[in-house]
Amino acid sequence: MEPSALSPVMDVEALEAFLARDFPQLHADGRHYRVVRVKPGTVTMRLSPEDRHLRPGGTVSGPTLFTLADVGAYLAILAHIGPSALTVTTNLTINFMHKAAPGPLEGMARLLKLGKRLAVVETTITDAEGRLIAHATGTYSIPPDRHDAVK
Amino acid sequence: MEPSALSPVMDVEALEAFLARDFPQLHADGRHYRVVRVKPGTVTMRLSPEDRHLRPGGTVSGPTLFTLADVGAYLAILAHIGPSALTVTTNLTINFMHKAAPGPLEGMARLLKLGKRLAVVETTITDAEGRLIAHATGTYSIPPDRHDAVK
Amino acid sequence: MEPSALSPVMDVEALEAFLARDFPQLHADGRHYRVVRVKPGTVTMRLSPEDRHLRPGGTVSGPTLFTLADVGAYLAILAHIGPSALTVTTNLTINFMHKAAPGPLEGMARLLKLGKRLAVVETTITDAEGRLIAHATGTYSIPPDRHDAVK
Amino acid sequence: MEPSALSPVMDVEALEAFLARDFPQLHADGRHYRVVRVKPGTVTMRLSPEDRHLRPGGTVSGPTLFTLADVGAYLAILAHIGPSALTVTTNLTINFMHKAAPGPLEGMARLLKLGKRLAVVETTITDAEGRLIAHATGTYSIPPDRHDAVK
Repeated sequence: MEPSALSPVMDVEALEAFLARDFPQLHADGRHYRVVRVKPGTVTMRLSPEDRHLRPGGTVSGPTLFTLADVGAYLAILAHIGPSALTVTTNLTINFMHKAAPGPLEGMARLLKLGKRLAVVETTITDAEGRLIAHATGTYSIPPDRHDAVK
Repeated sequence: MEPSALSPVMDVEALEAFLARDFPQLHADGRHYRVVRVKPGTVTMRLSPEDRHLRPGGTVSGPTLFTLADVGAYLAILAHIGPSALTVTTNLTINFMHKAAPGPLEGMARLLKLGKRLAVVETTITDAEGRLIAHATGTYSIPPDRHDAVK
Repeated sequence: MEPSALSPVMDVEALEAFLARDFPQLHADGRHYRVVRVKPGTVTMRLSPEDRHLRPGGTVSGPTLFTLADVGAYLAILAHIGPSALTVTTNLTINFMHKAAPGPLEGMARLLKLGKRLAVVETTITDAEGRLIAHATGTYSIPPDRHDAVK
Repeated sequence: MEPSALSPVMDVEALEAFLARDFPQLHADGRHYRVVRVKPGTVTMRLSPEDRHLRPGGTVSGPTLFTLADVGAYLAILAHIGPSALTVTTNLTINFMHKAAPGPLEGMARLLKLGKRLAVVETTITDAEGRLIAHATGTYSIPPDRHDAVK
């Protein structure tokens, strides 16, 4: 499927419900990661970092930014194919552009390719001033049977 | 410096003390990440995953593996240049090879290059059976003044 | 410098002249790679592949697409800082999305970050129908003295 | 298949014959890339760079090193599954560690994972003094029918 022909099948509420049911670990410390927008080809998440998300120097840590990029990309795929929990990251490259002071960050995940068994997703993370904090590109493996939501 | 001429200046205890003092966020949920070995050019960490480190399907999550790779690489650099807390990840690529069932994982970070301002580190994550779970390569920017430990 | 404030200091002709003088190897087999557009923050190149640029199966080869991405990114930096030939690629990640049938391809390189010593550039490669063929993200090291054009 | 259980099914001569027949473009300018060793899990290639392989500053160019890494990884897969020409690179990350002066380089490609439809390969490029020049990690998609050698 070409990204230009993409049409979401899950909305913000459906994605949030999926996370709450199938990925409760993401919210183990509170609901810091939220889905804020779903559009054709994209899903945007918002992170409200707390102290636990910081690294030495007081900026948002790499693992926190990775989580935002990876979960956003995962949801961008699921938003377009349905709740296929067993879709997994094959690999991910993340570039850190600017240190992020504590404060809300948005990660917009955009499908570059959505094939039958492989998807490629780009995630752009920006701060409240619109500065580019990090940029990630990930590939995801989609299981043959997409109707595999964890019960 | 060529990796073959590397000689650590911090040992397991010094790295653990650095984490406890300068990076308490890593242990916010308990001490799941531990330094287990320091050798010329390498640092090995061990992760004992709990439920919070899992993803849908019950395997260890990508962000957890990223954390093990990134923190291990960061400590491999610090072990050889001293406690330069402001060394930061510039970028990181991680490939996920096999799903990791819950259980201890080891991440061995190995310096591929340790320059004055840039380091390249490869991290190999294996499970207790020696299976390759993930492989990461990261580049790290080293600040001009290395004696910058956060007070 | 924020990408939004970028202003090119070299135009298409200046970049082509730079390539002809300092990077003649690129044209060793003929002028297959051409600069077609320079805008604030971006440089677009066009590749007209010949048989030598193909791989088994008759599609454009990975190394050819890498060259388009890497040279485009390099020129996007030079277009904004001047002819600093010794700017070098630190690392590059490329994702191949669709096979490219023989035919012209465009690579648009866009600066994500242009720091004093490090730049991050994203390159998007599309075919004549606008299909996304490949996507690359590279980091580049900029030498302290930018006025280092090879004589 | 675990890399530890790998056993090559093509030797140096068979890989060279495959390149000559199915990938003549690699030798369009002469036989600069040669297969020198095949072992369980690895293939080593040697590059003898000429002027056309250099970049501004007189060192071996990024695209040349990418080619060595990518073709080496491709052949490491084929050496273990047979001449499946349509195996394609899905993505590749390459880190450039040291500038390579003109002179022979070796690229050792090592299988990190060889699955039924996806392989992950690491390539290490060294110069004659054993210095690490570049390091790459690539993922490759293997077509369902491996007996697809281009006729």
